[in-house]
Amino acid sequence: MSWHDSYCQHVLWPDYRFASQHLAEHFLDAMTAHVRTVARLPDRVVQTHQREIEGLEHALIALHDTPLPSYNADVPDLYFMFNRKLEAEVGEQAVGFLRLGLSRNDLDMTVYKMRARRFLLQLAASLLDLRSAVLQQAEAHVETILVAYTHHQPGQPTTVAHYLAAVDNTLSREFERMTEAYRRLNRCPLGAAALAGSSHPLDRSYTAQQLGFDGPVDNTYDAVASSDWQVELVGVAQNGALGLSRFVCDLIQWSSQGLFALPDSLVQGSSIMPQKRNPVALEHARTKLSRAVGSAQSILYSSHNIPYGDLNDFGPDIQGAFQALSVQLGGGLALLNACVGEGTFVRDTLEAMARATDTTATELADELVRQAGLSFPQAHKLSAALVEKMTNEGRRLQDATPADMLVLGGPQLSDAVLKEALEPHAFVRRRRGLGGPAPEVVSEHLVAARERLEHSRGWLEHQQHHLTRAQTQLRTPRKDLV
Amino acid sequence: MSWHDSYCQHVLWPDYRFASQHLAEHFLDAMTAHVRTVARLPDRVVQTHQREIEGLEHALIALHDTPLPSYNADVPDLYFMFNRKLEAEVGEQAVGFLRLGLSRNDLDMTVYKMRARRFLLQLAASLLDLRSAVLQQAEAHVETILVAYTHHQPGQPTTVAHYLAAVDNTLSREFERMTEAYRRLNRCPLGAAALAGSSHPLDRSYTAQQLGFDGPVDNTYDAVASSDWQVELVGVAQNGALGLSRFVCDLIQWSSQGLFALPDSLVQGSSIMPQKRNPVALEHARTKLSRAVGSAQSILYSSHNIPYGDLNDFGPDIQGAFQALSVQLGGGLALLNACVGEGTFVRDTLEAMARATDTTATELADELVRQAGLSFPQAHKLSAALVEKMTNEGRRLQDATPADMLVLGGPQLSDAVLKEALEPHAFVRRRRGLGGPAPEVVSEHLVAARERLEHSRGWLEHQQHHLTRAQTQLRTPRKDLV
Amino acid sequence: MSWHDSYCQHVLWPDYRFASQHLAEHFLDAMTAHVRTVARLPDRVVQTHQREIEGLEHALIALHDTPLPSYNADVPDLYFMFNRKLEAEVGEQAVGFLRLGLSRNDLDMTVYKMRARRFLLQLAASLLDLRSAVLQQAEAHVETILVAYTHHQPGQPTTVAHYLAAVDNTLSREFERMTEAYRRLNRCPLGAAALAGSSHPLDRSYTAQQLGFDGPVDNTYDAVASSDWQVELVGVAQNGALGLSRFVCDLIQWSSQGLFALPDSLVQGSSIMPQKRNPVALEHARTKLSRAVGSAQSILYSSHNIPYGDLNDFGPDIQGAFQALSVQLGGGLALLNACVGEGTFVRDTLEAMARATDTTATELADELVRQAGLSFPQAHKLSAALVEKMTNEGRRLQDATPADMLVLGGPQLSDAVLKEALEPHAFVRRRRGLGGPAPEVVSEHLVAARERLEHSRGWLEHQQHHLTRAQTQLRTPRKDLV
Amino acid sequence: MSWHDSYCQHVLWPDYRFASQHLAEHFLDAMTAHVRTVARLPDRVVQTHQREIEGLEHALIALHDTPLPSYNADVPDLYFMFNRKLEAEVGEQAVGFLRLGLSRNDLDMTVYKMRARRFLLQLAASLLDLRSAVLQQAEAHVETILVAYTHHQPGQPTTVAHYLAAVDNTLSREFERMTEAYRRLNRCPLGAAALAGSSHPLDRSYTAQQLGFDGPVDNTYDAVASSDWQVELVGVAQNGALGLSRFVCDLIQWSSQGLFALPDSLVQGSSIMPQKRNPVALEHARTKLSRAVGSAQSILYSSHNIPYGDLNDFGPDIQGAFQALSVQLGGGLALLNACVGEGTFVRDTLEAMARATDTTATELADELVRQAGLSFPQAHKLSAALVEKMTNEGRRLQDATPADMLVLGGPQLSDAVLKEALEPHAFVRRRRGLGGPAPEVVSEHLVAARERLEHSRGWLEHQQHHLTRAQTQLRTPRKDLV
Repeated sequence: MSWHDSYCQHVLWPDYRFASQHLAEHFLDAMTAHVRTVARLPDRVVQTHQREIEGLEHALIALHDTPLPSYNADVPDLYFMFNRKLEAEVGEQAVGFLRLGLSRNDLDMTVYKMRARRFLLQLAASLLDLRSAVLQQAEAHVETILVAYTHHQPGQPTTVAHYLAAVDNTLSREFERMTEAYRRLNRCPLGAAALAGSSHPLDRSYTAQQLGFDGPVDNTYDAVASSDWQVELVGVAQNGALGLSRFVCDLIQWSSQGLFALPDSLVQGSSIMPQKRNPVALEHARTKLSRAVGSAQSILYSSHNIPYGDLNDFGPDIQGAFQALSVQLGGGLALLNACVGEGTFVRDTLEAMARATDTTATELADELVRQAGLSFPQAHKLSAALVEKMTNEGRRLQDATPADMLVLGGPQLSDAVLKEALEPHAFVRRRRGLGGPAPEVVSEHLVAARERLEHSRGWLEHQQHHLTRAQTQLRTPRKDLV
Repeated sequence: MSWHDSYCQHVLWPDYRFASQHLAEHFLDAMTAHVRTVARLPDRVVQTHQREIEGLEHALIALHDTPLPSYNADVPDLYFMFNRKLEAEVGEQAVGFLRLGLSRNDLDMTVYKMRARRFLLQLAASLLDLRSAVLQQAEAHVETILVAYTHHQPGQPTTVAHYLAAVDNTLSREFERMTEAYRRLNRCPLGAAALAGSSHPLDRSYTAQQLGFDGPVDNTYDAVASSDWQVELVGVAQNGALGLSRFVCDLIQWSSQGLFALPDSLVQGSSIMPQKRNPVALEHARTKLSRAVGSAQSILYSSHNIPYGDLNDFGPDIQGAFQALSVQLGGGLALLNACVGEGTFVRDTLEAMARATDTTATELADELVRQAGLSFPQAHKLSAALVEKMTNEGRRLQDATPADMLVLGGPQLSDAVLKEALEPHAFVRRRRGLGGPAPEVVSEHLVAARERLEHSRGWLEHQQHHLTRAQTQLRTPRKDLV
Repeated sequence: MSWHDSYCQHVLWPDYRFASQHLAEHFLDAMTAHVRTVARLPDRVVQTHQREIEGLEHALIALHDTPLPSYNADVPDLYFMFNRKLEAEVGEQAVGFLRLGLSRNDLDMTVYKMRARRFLLQLAASLLDLRSAVLQQAEAHVETILVAYTHHQPGQPTTVAHYLAAVDNTLSREFERMTEAYRRLNRCPLGAAALAGSSHPLDRSYTAQQLGFDGPVDNTYDAVASSDWQVELVGVAQNGALGLSRFVCDLIQWSSQGLFALPDSLVQGSSIMPQKRNPVALEHARTKLSRAVGSAQSILYSSHNIPYGDLNDFGPDIQGAFQALSVQLGGGLALLNACVGEGTFVRDTLEAMARATDTTATELADELVRQAGLSFPQAHKLSAALVEKMTNEGRRLQDATPADMLVLGGPQLSDAVLKEALEPHAFVRRRRGLGGPAPEVVSEHLVAARERLEHSRGWLEHQQHHLTRAQTQLRTPRKDLV
Repeated sequence: MSWHDSYCQHVLWPDYRFASQHLAEHFLDAMTAHVRTVARLPDRVVQTHQREIEGLEHALIALHDTPLPSYNADVPDLYFMFNRKLEAEVGEQAVGFLRLGLSRNDLDMTVYKMRARRFLLQLAASLLDLRSAVLQQAEAHVETILVAYTHHQPGQPTTVAHYLAAVDNTLSREFERMTEAYRRLNRCPLGAAALAGSSHPLDRSYTAQQLGFDGPVDNTYDAVASSDWQVELVGVAQNGALGLSRFVCDLIQWSSQGLFALPDSLVQGSSIMPQKRNPVALEHARTKLSRAVGSAQSILYSSHNIPYGDLNDFGPDIQGAFQALSVQLGGGLALLNACVGEGTFVRDTLEAMARATDTTATELADELVRQAGLSFPQAHKLSAALVEKMTNEGRRLQDATPADMLVLGGPQLSDAVLKEALEPHAFVRRRRGLGGPAPEVVSEHLVAARERLEHSRGWLEHQQHHLTRAQTQLRTPRKDLV
């Protein structure tokens, strides 16, 4: 039997290459787990061939250390290549037990889920690294004033820490989404066979447990036909990438303005412009996030308007898209982590910028309400008038005097009260309600955020350890297991 | 002050129309809650104006029953229109208390979240209706054979119930995602003011509780700047729409083949082709799902490469996209619910089709392993040879005899064993492992699925009741509250 | 016959409302054209009923001025509503001639294309307005220095005109794409009937010509089944929206920095921050472009993985998506047109900024090659060293002296040569190669760009006039036509 | 100078690998063309170093045959690696002439466009192959009846040729779009330097001509900053992929029904289901098209909400997305070409299916109008009644007799007239209007389609030849050129 050249070139060869590189170990683990479950079948034939089955299992484990041949025209895919190798080792009869109640449908889907688990845990680990870097910067800048923009204009003073704590909140919610997606993902399809399970009474819970899943998918059709876990991963990735694209947007802007400085190891010059020092690491982070969102669309289209059943669309054909997503989103996270971890918020320039703006005008209005009993709309108008007066006179708002206020028909304020009302640090200090930027409020929030981060790390380590343990057991001959 | 014609025509007017129609009640509730929180400020001015504040609150509540004027060139938006109306009722001084520590930033975001809550609960309700319809069909077809296709070719027999139980599994996971998104969404931004909170010590927890939120967003910058909850809703919607697009694909296919019949009220004829009876309700369901996935992209683009701060992109400008998503996805769910609820799986045709196919060949192979000790690969080859022989002879696989098997060099099987191995119902009955299609297994699964549905309904009713109660309290003058 | 409530609510009613509002006139024109073609059939029956057919045609024309009833449960859609009204006017027998060789398939597709033509011409008109505004600003700023950024850092001086001429180039290519899409779109499906044409020998070329099409689609299956013209419109819209999103990005940035100023009629203040003056018209333009790109995805999904044949997916069900696209992209263009047309490039600030940067360093290197025979890499290094020296000494690059150069081991340059090499205007003046920013080069380019614009306007007016004339002829009883 | 590990791992290394593999020859050609243009500068320094420049040019040409080193930590990218190699060959002074008026900005963009040209021409070639295969099948099936479906139900008879001629129409329009995109793409950025051109009077037209471009981009800012040509390629690819997804949808459906048969070399069996013969080549074609549409989104996102200027987003960072697009769309085209070219439309089954349906009912109605003077609505009703009667009696519509018609109150038709009206071939033969399915009409259309194909092939060969010639000239030392 030989396949069409185009089919080889565009399907069989690239799929084989991909599977060799990215899926082989998962295939072997899943096959080993299946064989161990087959070995427990109450069937007479099975019982009388325990030795052959054990041999098969050993051969499977040994394949982990065997170099994979490049594509061989005789076999359509990696699965059949493994079959051939096993037959050569233990004979066709023994390999027959591997295929009992097993279909590429459930085997493939199991392998894809195993790979997706790892992808998700890697992303989660990168996300935790970034959260850690964000919190570290936050902790160092609880008192560093940042002029927050709204609608692309200076809005109000807050602190770098307050801003970064907000970023950490979004990343923490993103982590939650990852854990929830992981929980739904981590159910095992094996034993579903083609779609209807098998008439051999395979213990699917045992198979699932061996592979580190939380249990089997509890409907065999669902096990091979559903792709919602893929679409959910896309949702998680979209949220991560889009949220971070906004953070990157600010970091780039601050780099342009000299408020955030990257080290030399993260900038590049120009081949023609001698003065250049481009914050390219941030730019590349942005584009990787864009490509992550974009490439994820492949996965959406691949689950659109196709039957609900076993198909290639969301099987082998979409693995490359997950790879692309992993490279892009993972790369974006890594670059961003480097930039946040090794960049510097330039305190003096940030402070100078704050003092140069009118952004404390809100507090002046608030103070006019408290000190002079004006209604807020009246106070707002008066404060706006003062801003305008100072601008026209080429003076900074912070340099306004009680006399300026009187000229505008405003109330008599003491010099101290006015100065304080217009001072950025005071602006921040006074905002100490729940979630506000006042240093003591943010400090307390950051302590809780650190605890939350540790809790997240605990979850991640637990999952990683769980998978590692399962893997070790599967790669150790049963007789060597304690 | 007058705005540019283009600005009026493309921004102010349509936004006002939209807000009047879809957001007014949420604005009033949020403003009422804020005023009640302001009334509790320890501030002297506030304490001495309790009567005015109470009047303001009453005026706010009364606005629920006041017809909204159409757009008025004097005021840029609904919020300022309400301000004007309130000023006319209770005076500018009193209205000043509304604006204390309040920004359109936090107010808008609160309103958008209130609207999103409702959108999400409506979708959840539609999803539960569909799950109920799916389960009802499943319960009626536990023994109805369905030939399941893989790769667009007949694969194996299963039952309609087994297939629908798998669909219900996906819908149930979708419901879970909705509840998780709801939990993250249901935190209140109010009190965040422009972004840094207020120097007036507003009790943000009290505000949040009044509005039926689970609590305030615990960082004021996060409260006004984050759009991850929107992207998460998109993820949920994508998953719902794409998953259902696959179910619809099958229903349409089955309609084409006469396996699933829609009632007259859901089909349309042709103006030119006299024989036509088109299953258009399913076709429209498909297109609404396509448009839901597509229109959701608006929301993704609106959070891409913009600063992390308060902006219009994910504020007023994206509300129409949520509306479109609601119309399309909600419409798709409603049509699908009608089709599943009132369509008929045509038992006889389904059975006849099953008997006409070769899809029990797998079980024959399994049986050859058990009865004759063949390895599965050998049994697979023999079964395939029988399929080929019967096809070449123009006979159905089910009519194969022990003699046919012998001719192919196969083992001697009794007539009864062979018949049973080739019979679709037996195929299904024998697959009684975890998650398999055997009637008793599926029946048990369906009982659990019903319980799961009731549990989901309980969650939904709790949330709906919680919001209704909060709303009632907000629309009742405080003195009338028990 | 009565349809299911859900079907009415989610399909029939909204479709009827939409068709009444947006499609009615196109339906009537297309039906009139068809009836006139039927009247020419050589058929005996047709020939003997010319008077009835003429009456039918008059009744059709009169319907343009008849108010449309709201949805009537008796008829599924606007087409059948028109049929009912015509029957009441001229009798069932006469209306029969309308339905000869006519299907809703070809009629609908014709109507959708007529609507798409208008949509495309409106977009083209808006684009021309924007091009005109861009060129006007360019013409006024041929000598206004703009520091062009690359990688978010100051790169080189150019002029506002040079930048805007580049923008005009992109808009001009976009216009070309529109005309090409229009040419492919403007073929008439009528006469294709259900898909196979009719056994009545209808003159499809005559029908097409009446409706202002360039001719009929030359395969009747293609006429009703193809949606590539829709996907092409999406491509055109994506390109317009994304290209403009980049221009808006710069305008917003320049607004933030005071380099580009919007008039009061295009900015908004804040309800809480007294100092605010937000360039919201630009922000809304951005979000409309984002929504245009996003909503266009609906149209892509609606042509994905569906059969190639007549379907609702790319028919009635996608009209709302085109409407959304029209509103968003059209709105974005209009806002942008207002901002460019009425905004101000702030010459002095732009110049001051240019003088404050190091962006002439490239020219210094070029001059060192010419004057001193250094290789470019050597000159680049020397220029970079000078930049660093000046920065460290807190001096502007422009204030460098021949002595500074000598200190760095560079060649002796005259003061005049050095000053000129570091002066932004000189930088620009010297770049007078093809496409460069030198004022005389850009001025010449702008003259050509104006001519190109006039040529585009000529095309547009020709198409508009052509459609108007066809429409007039169709709405005038034949006997009144000259 | 050393870069951050993350920057190396996620940017520099993969970019270098990619450039080595996919861009090296374009870099060398572009650099050679630039050096030849530099050699023509009237500058004294240039004139006195002609020999060095010639040596540089030779060294550049020789690099085509030099193996590329793997990534070297000393140089950030392929461009600088080439610089190093050239310096080693001809000295730093000589290499300096390469860098005169050259920036990576214009060089990169030129290289990306050269690569995009090739990508587009390859796609165009694949498209022509597919058109050829489609026309060949069409020519063989001018009389083969195909029941065309509308709304997923049997609609009317047409022929395989009529259907395929429609497909060819769409592919031909797609080809047009490619040629138009190519024309806009094929303008040369070189000489734009960083963005403002150079003060050295480089002859940009000469550079463009050497590289096979139609001319230089006529604004240097446009040359380096615009990405509309990328978005246009996405539009072209979307249209190709979505249009073909619909064709594939039909081919798969016909495969399921036995109407279209793939050869063994394009199907795969099942590891568990012995009877399986899956048309996987078509399924993989579908998924490649889905991934093409999806992955193209990366390119859209990369041009969204970024400044209009030189950036990495649409430069190096998007080349991988074009690669993915090329692999997916090219692969989909190749698979589809194989399936169409080597698959078989199963004439007998197609005919049998046509005779089993009611799809000639339209023609019966048409005939009733002509023969009996009924209005079309009356004829439609009568035809529908006959369909219903025959269905209820379990008889095929084609077996209806004049008596059946009379029973329904219809007119007296002769047996011959009735038979002919209900016969699928007659149905098709009678539809001989412009674009109809009648064999002589389609045959004529196919002749024109062949001519159109040849014309397209002529265009393609011209472009390919033009690029090859330019390449040859660039890789031949000037003194060896005739």
